[in-house]
This record gives sequence, C-alpha cells and structure tokens, in this order.
Amino acid sequence: MHENNNNCIPRSVEWKETSISLLNQQKLPHETEYLELKTIEDVWDAITTLKVRGAPAIGIAAAFGLALSAADISADSLDSFHRQLNSQKDYLAGSRPTAVNLAWALDRLVKAAQKAISVNEAKTLLIHEAIRIQVEDEETCRLIGENALSLFKAGDKVMTICNAGSIATAKYGTALAPFYLAKQKDISLEVYACETRPVLQGARLTAWELLQAGVDVTLITDNMAAHTMKSKGITSIIVGADRITANGDTANKIGTYNLAILAKAFDIPFYVAAPLSTFDPSLDSGKSIPIEERNPEEVTHLHGVRIAPEGVNVFNPAFDVTPSELITGIVTERGILTGDYLSKIRNLFKEEAQYVES
Amino acid sequence: MHENNNNCIPRSVEWKETSISLLNQQKLPHETEYLELKTIEDVWDAITTLKVRGAPAIGIAAAFGLALSAADISADSLDSFHRQLNSQKDYLAGSRPTAVNLAWALDRLVKAAQKAISVNEAKTLLIHEAIRIQVEDEETCRLIGENALSLFKAGDKVMTICNAGSIATAKYGTALAPFYLAKQKDISLEVYACETRPVLQGARLTAWELLQAGVDVTLITDNMAAHTMKSKGITSIIVGADRITANGDTANKIGTYNLAILAKAFDIPFYVAAPLSTFDPSLDSGKSIPIEERNPEEVTHLHGVRIAPEGVNVFNPAFDVTPSELITGIVTERGILTGDYLSKIRNLFKEEAQYVES
Repeated sequence: MHENNNNCIPRSVEWKETSISLLNQQKLPHETEYLELKTIEDVWDAITTLKVRGAPAIGIAAAFGLALSAADISADSLDSFHRQLNSQKDYLAGSRPTAVNLAWALDRLVKAAQKAISVNEAKTLLIHEAIRIQVEDEETCRLIGENALSLFKAGDKVMTICNAGSIATAKYGTALAPFYLAKQKDISLEVYACETRPVLQGARLTAWELLQAGVDVTLITDNMAAHTMKSKGITSIIVGADRITANGDTANKIGTYNLAILAKAFDIPFYVAAPLSTFDPSLDSGKSIPIEERNPEEVTHLHGVRIAPEGVNVFNPAFDVTPSELITGIVTERGILTGDYLSKIRNLFKEEAQYVES
Repeated sequence: MHENNNNCIPRSVEWKETSISLLNQQKLPHETEYLELKTIEDVWDAITTLKVRGAPAIGIAAAFGLALSAADISADSLDSFHRQLNSQKDYLAGSRPTAVNLAWALDRLVKAAQKAISVNEAKTLLIHEAIRIQVEDEETCRLIGENALSLFKAGDKVMTICNAGSIATAKYGTALAPFYLAKQKDISLEVYACETRPVLQGARLTAWELLQAGVDVTLITDNMAAHTMKSKGITSIIVGADRITANGDTANKIGTYNLAILAKAFDIPFYVAAPLSTFDPSLDSGKSIPIEERNPEEVTHLHGVRIAPEGVNVFNPAFDVTPSELITGIVTERGILTGDYLSKIRNLFKEEAQYVES
C-alpha cells in the first residue's frame, strides 16, 4: 500500500531500492497513478513525457534513475564502470535538455562516485548521493515553509497561483510549504488557488495536492482574484518563482504580476517563496529575463477540444516578471528578504560563498 | 446564401417575414449555424437553451417570435385575437423568467397591437413594433460605438473582456461597437480579448465575431492581462456592463474589476460602454448589487471534462463590481459621462424623463 492517502503530503518521487515510485502528474487530477520505474529507459521516458515536472523533482528523479541503472552495471574495473556511468548520465541528461536541475543532479552523482575505490562502493555512493539530494531539497523546502509560516496566523486566507508544490520538489514545495506545516501544527489557514490558465496547474495540481493533505483549499478562475480578495478578505498572497534577479525582480508563472498589482491595490502583503538556487544574481533586473512564448494551442484548445475560433491571433507568454517594488518579502531557506533587495541578495550570496569556501 | 460572410458584422437575429434567422451561439466557435425558427415553440426553445444570449438580442428574438406566431392567429374578433396574443406572450415570457428585456419587449408589442382597429392591422403593428425594437437597439449601439470611437485613435491597442458584442444586441454591441465602426472607417485598432473564464465568452464569442468582421483581434487568457498591458503597450480598456448604479459603480462579468485595477496601475484609461437601459439609479452604489454565484461545475469542468480534483471547494461569482473611481468614462448613446458620476447620471435621467414626457 502506498502512504499517499488522505491527509498525507504527496511526493513526486520515492526510492524503492529496486525501483523508483513516481507520481504520474500527467494523469492528475483524474487519476492518482504511481508508476514503478525499473529501468533507465523508464526514467528517461517519465521525464521526457512530463510525468514528473518541477525542477527539483526532475533532478531527484534523474538522480535516482542514474543510481538505479548504475547498480546493474557489470564492470571489471572502475574505469570501465565510470565510462558506462558517464554514458548513462549523458542519456538521462538528454531527457529534458534545458532543465538546469537535471544536469546539476547528474553531475553531482558522477562526482560523488569518483571518490569510490571499488565498483561496489561507487554504486553505493551513487545511491547515497541521490538520497542526499532529495533529503537536502526536502529540508530546504521545510525551512522555506517554516519561514513563510511565520508570516501567517490562524484564520488567514492566503491566495496562490500555479503549483509551487510538494510534487514539484522532494516534499512540501515552496509557496505551498507553509500550508502543509500549518496543517501539521494545527494552525487553520484557508487557501485560495487560482486555476492558472492556460495549463491549469492550480486547478489540476495545487488543488489536488492540498486536498490530499487535508488543507482547506478553494479553487477560483484567475479573473476572480480581485473580487475574491475583496469579498473573501484575502489576507496575503504567496507564490513561487522561476528566476529572481539581483534586484529582486521575480519571473514566475503568467498571472503572478496581476496578483502583485491587485495585492498592492488592496494593501495585502505579496510574498515570493523560493530557494537560493532560484536566484540569478548575474542578471541586474527582470528586464533581462527572456519570456518564453508557448504554443497557441495551449490557449485555443483544452483536452484537444477547440475553445476559440480558428485563425484567431494568440499571445501566450508562459511567465511574467513582477518588479521587486511590488514584493513584500522573498522567503528563502535562509530567512526572509525585505526592503533593499539589491543589497540583501548581494549579502546573502556573499555569506553563502564564504560558507561554501570555509 | 447568408450575408454573414467574412468582413461582415454578425447579427444574432434577423426577421425573414415567414421565419426568424437565428445564430446558434451554442455552437460557436466550432460551427457557424443559422437556425430557421418557424414556430413560437422554436423561439421558446432557442431562448431557453441559450442559443440566443445577451439581453437585447433575447428581447428582439422574443419580439419577432411573438409577431411571427401572431400572424397565424385565426380570430373573428379583436378581443379573441388579444386573448390568444396574451397567452402566446405569457408562453414566451416564461422562456427565461429573469430576463428583463424579454418581458419589456413582449409588453411593448402587446401594447402596440392595442392601437389596431382590426386583426390584420394588429398583426402588422406587431411586426412593425418588433422591427422598431431591433432598429432602435441597433441605433443605440451605433451611437455608443460612435461615442466610444472618439476615445481611440489609429494604432491604439484596446483590451476587452467577455462579449459585449454584436451578437448580444441587434448589431454592433456596446463595448465592441467602436471596433466595428473603426473597421468601417478604416481606422486600424488592435483588440486584445480576454478569454473570460469560466464560460469563455471572450474566446468563444468575442474572438469569433471580431474575426468575422475582419477586426484585428488577439486572444489572451485572463491572467495574461498585466503582462500584455505592459509588454504590448495596451492604450485603453473598454468593457460592457450588466448594471450601473446611481454613483457609477458598475457590475459586469467577473474579471472586469481586475482589469480596472490593472488599468489604474498602468495609467491606462478604463471605459464602460452601456445603454441608458443598463443604469439602475434606484441603487445608491455597487454595494447593493447582489452577485450571483453559479454552478461550481462551470469552473471544475470544461466541455464535460473534469479539470479539477473531485471534492475541491469552488468559488464561482459570475460578476464583480468595479467602483466608479476606477472608471475613466461611461460611454452611452447620449454621450460620455466622466467625473462626478452621481450628478452626471442624475442629470442624464432628469433630461431623459423630460424628453419622454414632452
């Protein structure tokens, strides 16, 4: 039996020694299906076909995939083992070429295996490193959740968008982490999830995973945000992030910018929750972030059914950029940044560099 | 052949002497089907099953329906004719009990027929009155369009939501009227239509009818509004209205309030387009407007397919109220109201009352 029953926080990926259990996010919310991945090809396929999504979850799935397949390598020398391992790494790295966490996790495994003095030790080190990546991500998310929860009190009504959730990470998620921790601590919060057109991550994923954990969640369409803030008395907004620049400007799922402007109009705090790995201090401001425009069919079709006339022009930006002046605080695993983001972010990364060097 | 080909402004209802041609809005945008309504039952069915929508269009369809069926009444006295006419009126009035325009149009026809001194004259008066209702509505919409067009210049990029369009009225619509008139005058405007979840009137109807007339229209999801205003340089926003109170507060399709707040943040003018019949000076402010909450399935299902998990709470308000201080101008058939809406609206209705009395 699986542990992800009611009132549990769902996980995307779990290590099962001889296989990997993976939540098939393509089938949500209609069906809760856990796949048993047994081969490197199973893992490659799951990543390519988006059965697992969310940068940290993809990295963890790939790391477990490499550890799993490496366990079956037969090699009479370490050299031979490393050659085969590298070839498996390259194969998995190609499953989603632009996913930064994917390459990062695989490189970390290969590096860990280099410390081994036997093939068997290398295989063990790979498994341990993959588990360590998952444990670290879970701890990062938990810390973000603890820090974010300090911003809320019992009875608060918090709005979110997209799915910065448990199933996109090792556990807990980022923007959704405080809701799970509140539930564990019996602090009652009401969550309002925007459905997040066009791909509906809010309706399909956020609503689903919060329901699994017994969190009080209400679904609205994105255009109901202003009326809901006013009529329901929303007390704050928390969202995830795809990239945060040196000055605190934040790229996130399309619609985030709308919520930030509405929050200001209603004098509601607007928080971004993200790990340090989401920051990109090499970019001065959000103006430098390229905005991906995706397939018009995401807007004109739903489940293969056309919902707009043929021939209509479509604008389909996947992200928008919220200027830092609209952000009340950025919640990280190392604390909450507020105010002068430029110097706060610079200091945080200076400390981090010193910490890593020491 | 039908006249509603490319580069024509689509009409919802047309009088064809022995039948009524009605655009089946239930089949849009997949199929452009014009029904031939021949009996009072056909008309009743078309209204009940929402094949025609939009208060003015419903009123016109019902008026034509009554004129059509009355033509077949066989009566040897005016008394007998009026008895049968009243029974047909009651039948049609029950097709959508809460539609104000429906009862108003039918009452107007019955009243017109009372001037007749013969059954044949009564039948003719009914047809003339129904046509007059349509012609008047078309003229009202055209005037709203002319007034609204004075607010735009060539090259403007105008955003709208829902379908305050030609197919909801006799012709032209309200918020969409200036786009048709601009097209006729060769003034190039770019329209950005918000898809308008949950029922998608923007994607299904507005995009469709503007395309028919050759208007440059781009579809976005509702949560793309802020990013689109900024990145595309939207120059103004125009929306319709369901009810306008004495102080100018405006109830309209859910999502309108979002756009008004965003417009203010981007310093873009925000206009409401509506005929005098939409004003309700008996209500002091938007606080008195009841907001209808509709079936959760509108949010959780699309074309019968579930897009959200079972058991999730849903908040589904159909309308929101935009406070008048966010409205740059209210465009009516009698001119554009700006500034002190309370006195402007009071004066307008004083003039109107004098005009009607004189």
